[in-house]
Amino acid sequence: MRTELSERLGIEHAIFGFTPFPAVAAAITRAGGLGVLGAVRYGEAEELAKDLDWMDAHVGGLPYGVDVVMPAKKVENVTVADVEAMIPEGHRAFVRETLARYGVPELAEGERAGWRITGWMEEVARSHVDVALEHPIKLLASALGHPPEDVIAQAHAAGVLVAALAGSARHARHHAEAGIDIVVAQGHEAGGHTGEIGTMVLVPEIAAAVAPLPVLAAGGIGTGAQAAAGLALGAQGVWLGSVWLTVAESELRSPVLRAKLLAAGSGDTVRSRSLTGKPARQLRTEWTEAWDGPESPGTLPMPLQGLLVADALSRIQGYETPELIGTPVGQIVGQMTEERPVAAVMDELTRGFEQAVARLDRIAGNIAGNGSSGEAGA
Amino acid sequence: MRTELSERLGIEHAIFGFTPFPAVAAAITRAGGLGVLGAVRYGEAEELAKDLDWMDAHVGGLPYGVDVVMPAKKVENVTVADVEAMIPEGHRAFVRETLARYGVPELAEGERAGWRITGWMEEVARSHVDVALEHPIKLLASALGHPPEDVIAQAHAAGVLVAALAGSARHARHHAEAGIDIVVAQGHEAGGHTGEIGTMVLVPEIAAAVAPLPVLAAGGIGTGAQAAAGLALGAQGVWLGSVWLTVAESELRSPVLRAKLLAAGSGDTVRSRSLTGKPARQLRTEWTEAWDGPESPGTLPMPLQGLLVADALSRIQGYETPELIGTPVGQIVGQMTEERPVAAVMDELTRGFEQAVARLDRIAGNIAGNGSSGEAGA
Repeated sequence: MRTELSERLGIEHAIFGFTPFPAVAAAITRAGGLGVLGAVRYGEAEELAKDLDWMDAHVGGLPYGVDVVMPAKKVENVTVADVEAMIPEGHRAFVRETLARYGVPELAEGERAGWRITGWMEEVARSHVDVALEHPIKLLASALGHPPEDVIAQAHAAGVLVAALAGSARHARHHAEAGIDIVVAQGHEAGGHTGEIGTMVLVPEIAAAVAPLPVLAAGGIGTGAQAAAGLALGAQGVWLGSVWLTVAESELRSPVLRAKLLAAGSGDTVRSRSLTGKPARQLRTEWTEAWDGPESPGTLPMPLQGLLVADALSRIQGYETPELIGTPVGQIVGQMTEERPVAAVMDELTRGFEQAVARLDRIAGNIAGNGSSGEAGA
Repeated sequence: MRTELSERLGIEHAIFGFTPFPAVAAAITRAGGLGVLGAVRYGEAEELAKDLDWMDAHVGGLPYGVDVVMPAKKVENVTVADVEAMIPEGHRAFVRETLARYGVPELAEGERAGWRITGWMEEVARSHVDVALEHPIKLLASALGHPPEDVIAQAHAAGVLVAALAGSARHARHHAEAGIDIVVAQGHEAGGHTGEIGTMVLVPEIAAAVAPLPVLAAGGIGTGAQAAAGLALGAQGVWLGSVWLTVAESELRSPVLRAKLLAAGSGDTVRSRSLTGKPARQLRTEWTEAWDGPESPGTLPMPLQGLLVADALSRIQGYETPELIGTPVGQIVGQMTEERPVAAVMDELTRGFEQAVARLDRIAGNIAGNGSSGEAGA
């Protein structure tokens, strides 16, 4: 699966795998894709540095990337305490009462919060960028907006390409004007922050809007057939996140959450503002339902909502409260029915892609046969 | 664009075009696809018979189909008057007040209502089926649920294949069990009634659920590249509706509505229950916004909502009230920027499909080159 972009990055397959887990990112890279490590969960840059050192020792010199959350809009001189003070007491009470209703215990003294809002603060994100650029990364991605222009320049000076996610052609043009190199066109189906437009419509629309910049197709992609569809739409690669959550190498700690993911159908996700304040697709749980329910005080704008719920989510994750535990994930969760090693997922992606192309060749009359279902699996 | 299904139906390209207009359906068929005429707007079976006679005279013996709205759930001994009586006065007042606020005049004495709720009544739909089967149709499609089993048997006895739209794997399995021959997997992006699941995820999920039945990909498909994507997902053909609204042959009467469609972006649609009581994607207008607004009494269940708004929509259409006029249409409305003849749309679909397959062949390494954007348009 080779495109101009994959050749520029020196990867065998134009498959970009976003994951919060170093072992997963390294395995994606080793299998010929580009593993992209999400930095937002790291509170301290030193922890990120340690994990990137580990990756360097486990990718055999092959390329990988890092994803930061770094909105270009800067808020000067605001501390976490200032932001905390903006959260209404009624919202805090709703969180307390919801947790109490499901009997979620307090975290034990000194126990680590699993979900770090600090990764969203610009100064922390900048320290992540500095650490990432001290490692041999090939790609710096930004999952929410494009990075500030000085950060883009900093990456370019280090020979690193910059990618930014977009859910609309307007956002994509905005990113392109800021000087990024790659747009990830993330459709409505995707896990995490998504817009209204489905991948089928969004990818060609963004590809036309930012040409000749390369575009990656994201949202609804977990198999080789879906990768072929994304590339047919004009993308130069595919960007996958959800599918790695349930791989054997996943460091997702909770067995309850893993089981929920493996059991969930494609209709068991919801776009909810309850996680960050912006619509993000995730498992539908009684937690997301509570925020959409009649007693909800409504969600707060980013970053207040994230700060408000950070400790609550840590408690829910830590104690694996079955009704409330969830995670950002896309509609392909319905296809994630068994735990497989990363290499098996990559193998299906590349073989499935080739099979889909062979089937299209038959439909186009380029080779003998037609696209009947009987031949599709050949 | 040949598949086992297109060969079974005797069509050159596996492109299925749904349209309420006979001239458009005939042109799709003449261009090598399968034109499918929507019958729901016909109040009287005689009108449908007349238009099918016209089609027979204009398709040169090539295959075409008819689409009816015929829920399998039967309600016995209920008249339109009975149903009208179930509509609360508050809802009627909301409709009157909304129309008055935008100065929508009453229809002139004897003026035809453009939108016919009677097409939704089972006895009318059955008369449509009888008329359709007296013509040389090759496909009977049902846009909402599958037809009753006796109607499926009636079609099969006439050698006619039966298709039904589905927005979830559960619906698709239900349709398959009823004995239909083809499932149209209609994603979230589509115009008209749609579910939550995007086309990228829905098509392979439904194809797996109903195999070996053939599946058509619908939702977000208006170009050859999108058709290639739909077929890559395992479909045996593509089903398009929105793209025909603005063709030269379209009988869409209102210049205001045509101009709105040509100007609309992919983000200018909304899934609203205001049309029929079930979520249907359509242009976002001040009419749909009013139903979602703070003064809305909420929509009624199907078929009450359709009866409630039928006359209002006729008045809005007839007088072309710019703020309120709309139509069911999918997110590909953003790609519909100029009026083209049906033949030009079909030509782009088949050529664009071939170009997309050639690009995928380069990406797969089957032929020289790679999938760079520079070569994609070749």
